[in-house]
Amino acid sequence: MNNNYMDDSLALHTDLYQINMTESYWDDGIHERKAVFEVYFRKLPFGNGYAVFAGLERIIQYLENFHFSESDLNYLKNDLGYDDDFLNYLKELRFTGTVYSVVEGEMVFGNEPIIRIEAPLAEAQLIETAILNIVNYQTLIATKAARIKHVAGDDILMEFGTRRAQELDAAIWGTRAAYIGGFHATSNVRAGKLFGIPVSGTHAHAFIQAYKDEYVAFHKYAERHKECVFLVDTYDTLRSGVPNAIKVAKELGDKIIFKGIRLDSGDLAYLSKEARKMLDNAGFYDTKIIASNDLDEETIMNLKSQGAKIDIWGIGTKLITAFDQPALGAVYKLVSIEDDNGQMIDTIKISGNPEKVSTPGLKKVYRIINRLNNKSEGDYITLQHETPEKEERIKMFHPVHTFISKFVTNFEAKELHQMIFNNGQLVYDTPSLEEMQAYTKKNLQLLWDEYKRSLHPEEYPVDLSQECWDNKMRNIDEVRQKVSEMIAKRSKE
Amino acid sequence: MNNNYMDDSLALHTDLYQINMTESYWDDGIHERKAVFEVYFRKLPFGNGYAVFAGLERIIQYLENFHFSESDLNYLKNDLGYDDDFLNYLKELRFTGTVYSVVEGEMVFGNEPIIRIEAPLAEAQLIETAILNIVNYQTLIATKAARIKHVAGDDILMEFGTRRAQELDAAIWGTRAAYIGGFHATSNVRAGKLFGIPVSGTHAHAFIQAYKDEYVAFHKYAERHKECVFLVDTYDTLRSGVPNAIKVAKELGDKIIFKGIRLDSGDLAYLSKEARKMLDNAGFYDTKIIASNDLDEETIMNLKSQGAKIDIWGIGTKLITAFDQPALGAVYKLVSIEDDNGQMIDTIKISGNPEKVSTPGLKKVYRIINRLNNKSEGDYITLQHETPEKEERIKMFHPVHTFISKFVTNFEAKELHQMIFNNGQLVYDTPSLEEMQAYTKKNLQLLWDEYKRSLHPEEYPVDLSQECWDNKMRNIDEVRQKVSEMIAKRSKE
Repeated sequence: MNNNYMDDSLALHTDLYQINMTESYWDDGIHERKAVFEVYFRKLPFGNGYAVFAGLERIIQYLENFHFSESDLNYLKNDLGYDDDFLNYLKELRFTGTVYSVVEGEMVFGNEPIIRIEAPLAEAQLIETAILNIVNYQTLIATKAARIKHVAGDDILMEFGTRRAQELDAAIWGTRAAYIGGFHATSNVRAGKLFGIPVSGTHAHAFIQAYKDEYVAFHKYAERHKECVFLVDTYDTLRSGVPNAIKVAKELGDKIIFKGIRLDSGDLAYLSKEARKMLDNAGFYDTKIIASNDLDEETIMNLKSQGAKIDIWGIGTKLITAFDQPALGAVYKLVSIEDDNGQMIDTIKISGNPEKVSTPGLKKVYRIINRLNNKSEGDYITLQHETPEKEERIKMFHPVHTFISKFVTNFEAKELHQMIFNNGQLVYDTPSLEEMQAYTKKNLQLLWDEYKRSLHPEEYPVDLSQECWDNKMRNIDEVRQKVSEMIAKRSKE
Repeated sequence: MNNNYMDDSLALHTDLYQINMTESYWDDGIHERKAVFEVYFRKLPFGNGYAVFAGLERIIQYLENFHFSESDLNYLKNDLGYDDDFLNYLKELRFTGTVYSVVEGEMVFGNEPIIRIEAPLAEAQLIETAILNIVNYQTLIATKAARIKHVAGDDILMEFGTRRAQELDAAIWGTRAAYIGGFHATSNVRAGKLFGIPVSGTHAHAFIQAYKDEYVAFHKYAERHKECVFLVDTYDTLRSGVPNAIKVAKELGDKIIFKGIRLDSGDLAYLSKEARKMLDNAGFYDTKIIASNDLDEETIMNLKSQGAKIDIWGIGTKLITAFDQPALGAVYKLVSIEDDNGQMIDTIKISGNPEKVSTPGLKKVYRIINRLNNKSEGDYITLQHETPEKEERIKMFHPVHTFISKFVTNFEAKELHQMIFNNGQLVYDTPSLEEMQAYTKKNLQLLWDEYKRSLHPEEYPVDLSQECWDNKMRNIDEVRQKVSEMIAKRSKE
């Protein structure tokens, strides 16, 4: 990065069109009209049955610090040619909006508003790109982590992916998201410092190479480090690595804690079973076996089905890059805007692609929890004024195949949005990462297992209330009508 | 990120094991022994015939600023429990090594050293993780960009992926890598500011929604912005969007430059052909058609084969995340180390997996360019003391299937490594991004088309010199011998 810019801000971390649109709004005098945008994605990643939301802390920092710095303004003026009058406006701009969001660790699904931004049009427009950049990646990784956690059960999970992450921020924020999703530790020391995530790691192959002799290398390591995990696959896992580790551990006795051995290549199922026997025969029953090498939820499940004796999983590339689907498609859509008379008017985005039609209006999201079994019946999206928590019975119906419906009674309707900013003031206390992780875990207990399996899970219901659905249909009709009139007019010209 | 750490450095952006190994080296007094590590990857990404190296500028910044800050040291002491004696050593540590690297924009291939680090063992070990984190991502994206450029020919390519990038750094450094690979512009304004990349963008669907009427929205945009690209697919591309754009352009005449229309959904082949006719019929022959919507080299090639009339391609997700292969597997291997007597000794990493066996010793990489046709015959890896540039004839043979061989004469042997740091001093002048892009382009002319096609390219030769190959075989034998002795010894105990 260019070190000449000590005051580099993130206000320019946006697409140019956001600035050009803002300029037009400002030029036209509509930049302070209240606008409401919602963040949502359409399709769950990895074919998973749920996603785990992450990214809010980073968004809070971004919005609290939102401003155009002097070097930003100089660049806009000197390199891009914006006029001083507009730049004077940008110079004073801060985020003054209201933000509702689900909390980090919340389960979220397709087509439900995760974040709602109510702000002057210009502000809401300028922040779109960075918010999506953050939410898309962090939610993707928290979800991938939860998927891996699901197959790993109570085994320990360690994030080892920094060297393969997509640049530095991804390594740091990705491992934080993985922690929210259920991982226990990371190899990235900076993530430990910045976020308080437990860090883990002992030595690499280069250490053995530096000493040339594996036994000597293990011994040297153990002389300085009380807690020892020996990497045993440098030369020959079962004939050299494990015997050398056991020899050093026996020789040093109480001076060290022989915490584990790590396997990083070869047939992990076979090697782990044989190594376990050797450790047990030597009396090291508590010494754990750690495996790594391109693992993900599929290989873990497969290794478990083969009876592999692996206690701890080190996951790198496949987690930190979300290898099988490296992007989540969250979008940011205008759902309501103030008109010339100061009235809020719903807006809709029509598309030839039916699932890309947005749902207009200010909305709330409820999780409908059955009081008899404490399982979720689905999510229920209402307009702002509705109060399903006060109703005895609600009808939930599929938003596309509307004949699929059910009546739900004896439920708790839990609203998922929390207010984060109120007119630019942060009003939300970020919980600790441990609390977020615990929340994710507790949360997932609301789901039937059928929604949680890693292959072909059932589709979790995300339904619109009748009013919300009717409002959407009305908006579609109105827009169609308007477009028809416009087309007719244009074709006569 | 935790804002309490104003002095956050990148020294902790490493795996914990690097610090633990360093501690042992230091404890054992071998931390200042000279060690040589090489960065290389084994397999080209995307099934491509070549890769384009990027990331050096970021590595230079990282190494120049390498130090443990006060908060780093406090964390290591208070949270991780390292002793003061070791921390006092870390406190003074700076990078004092020598670095050779290929330059950004250089074509690189599997199993050839891209970067060579010669440094005190401790320093070389600590910097591994961050260097791989940077090289892996940036090289991946530069390569993906070059792949897309190859099918796009002389069309303009714009990087639009920030919202789908894996966190903020990836958006910024990814678009820089894309520029090196041949892209012309980015939507990310901050990347424009930091790197001087041209930025591009006009308005989004939200702009049309904010005005509700497409014609009004286009008009408002054109009132403030002289250069206009209208997004025409909000309601109905051919019946509303294009006619409204043409109407506004006609009305405003010379007041604006009607640079283009953008298609972001629907059948891009059909819509672009129809839109082109409409623009031409209205006399707007110079107005360009820009397409976006999940494009990559495959869709571009497909659209071109259908005769789509697209002049400019906006590429997002598929480029910035390297969607079809989101990680490059570059590794960092010890190839030589000083022994007890101050002699440099080659090291090798053996593996059950033959292609994972490293090539020992300090090496140079030459590109062997045929003087008759100015095409490359392949890359030729030699030991440090060899001078193929002074030879009349060299034998190039396949490093696995050694019977595949050829003699080359009348060649230029171009050494690819440049010295970047000399004993910690930066000695390299980073060229401009434009120069890097031009270098990539020129470079690729050295390759026969057969290496450049996007599907099933020929395998480019990366060969070892006879001496280098013999040295590798000798090292393998020695290590095998040593391991056998160790195993025999262990089994007798």
